[in-house]
Amino acid sequence: MLGHVAEMLGIDFPLVPIAEPDEALFASAAGLPVMAGLDAAWTPGAATRDGARLALASLQWATRFTLSGITSGLVTAPVAKSALAAIGWDYPGQTEFLADACGQPYRDAVMMLAGPSLRTVPLTVHMALAEVPAALTSELIMHKARIVAAGLARDCGIAAPRLAIAALNPHAGEGGKFGDEETRIIAPAIAALRAEGIDAFGPVPGDALFTPRMRATYDAALAMYHDQALIPIKALEVDEGVNVTLGLPIIRTSPDHGTGFDIAGKGLADPGAMAAAIVMAAEMAAARG
Amino acid sequence: MLGHVAEMLGIDFPLVPIAEPDEALFASAAGLPVMAGLDAAWTPGAATRDGARLALASLQWATRFTLSGITSGLVTAPVAKSALAAIGWDYPGQTEFLADACGQPYRDAVMMLAGPSLRTVPLTVHMALAEVPAALTSELIMHKARIVAAGLARDCGIAAPRLAIAALNPHAGEGGKFGDEETRIIAPAIAALRAEGIDAFGPVPGDALFTPRMRATYDAALAMYHDQALIPIKALEVDEGVNVTLGLPIIRTSPDHGTGFDIAGKGLADPGAMAAAIVMAAEMAAARG
Repeated sequence: MLGHVAEMLGIDFPLVPIAEPDEALFASAAGLPVMAGLDAAWTPGAATRDGARLALASLQWATRFTLSGITSGLVTAPVAKSALAAIGWDYPGQTEFLADACGQPYRDAVMMLAGPSLRTVPLTVHMALAEVPAALTSELIMHKARIVAAGLARDCGIAAPRLAIAALNPHAGEGGKFGDEETRIIAPAIAALRAEGIDAFGPVPGDALFTPRMRATYDAALAMYHDQALIPIKALEVDEGVNVTLGLPIIRTSPDHGTGFDIAGKGLADPGAMAAAIVMAAEMAAARG
Repeated sequence: MLGHVAEMLGIDFPLVPIAEPDEALFASAAGLPVMAGLDAAWTPGAATRDGARLALASLQWATRFTLSGITSGLVTAPVAKSALAAIGWDYPGQTEFLADACGQPYRDAVMMLAGPSLRTVPLTVHMALAEVPAALTSELIMHKARIVAAGLARDCGIAAPRLAIAALNPHAGEGGKFGDEETRIIAPAIAALRAEGIDAFGPVPGDALFTPRMRATYDAALAMYHDQALIPIKALEVDEGVNVTLGLPIIRTSPDHGTGFDIAGKGLADPGAMAAAIVMAAEMAAARG
């Protein structure tokens, strides 16, 4: 399939079919090593059953190699979840599949968005904004903060990670005038994390959290909801935001974009995010040593 | 007071006392024209009654001059609201005072944050995040969008302003999976605005709204809540974010920071935001012609 794509787009792209991952070490001098035995027709811009089968087999192979230590990390590309569901794949997304493959509960898999100047972690993700306040608990903040601190130490070479914890309300509630989640939920979680020896601070008002001066004071910002984490990453880290899964035994990154079926096969895609995801996985593998 | 400050900080800063604003035209060749007759002791870092009286008198004079057309616009500095309240000033903030002075309801005064690469308008401001979903109505979106469109045309020289309207929920609710405010409230408001001839579009997911590519497609982004508007401004427009009040007959800008009592008198303050607010007021006055 890759060969077909390269031919269609007129790219000089030598492929070297290999049977086992460790052949890649030698084959890469001659071209891009590609596991043979998996293939499908290339149907740009369509979610086909053959495409879904190829995507799923690739994910399963790569997961198995990484879990067994043959490969150092896993970079996943976006998938068409509806097409995977149509062939019987029973997961809401790849992260849930990976947590399961690692034998860990999904809540241990923490999404971090990382770019050259900023790392953010949304503590709640795909839920209505109206449901966010009720979903926040001190326990949730502490659970994810512990995983982020451990992940930054193990995978990013940061010995004592500094975690900035966002407020939920404007001006952090301004002393309880508009919202009390800061005093009731967030501040107690920060105090408990500090008592455990984790360098957490806050709650920092959302709009103060992402100024350049503030960004220099922490290694990751923990945001209370999806957009609070994603708005600054997408505004600042143009095409370089990488989605990192912390909390699993394996290294896993992915580009922070979708399948792009609307531009598939047109030669318009920007590979920046995919390249950044691959580079970050390599750096994390080097940090683990 | 300004003379005292300049002396203490060792700044060569000639002042020219004037009695009426139109003397400024001639006096400015010799130094900074300052309305004589208003003065107080300088007590850095403290909210004094004398300081509050001076601040209030300055605001009242400047408002009167601008309303009468003697001055072209008004730039307000941050004030200590508690000190103003202590001398009997009965407004939650300067914007409410100004709306009142202009004989308009407060809801007509719309806050816009503006910098070199982005303008945002928060449709709800100082309320708990938990209260935001219930506060959003199609009428609120349309009311503020009309004021923003008229303000951009009159004060920013943009003949046909393009307004991007944010979604409330992540991924704009993903077809109702997490939240329905997009289909129930936001999309109908956009359709009605377009029927009135206002170039509004959306709802755009919050995290997609502030990428450089998206920013190039609109003149102002209308955000559903405080942090959705303030996070990108403060992340992108470092020390240059200006607070503009649209919807009043007068031009009014202010720097987007507080009183800074913690650094008052220490020579540490960055004048960038104040300078940007003054320049923007001048540009808006020029656009009005």
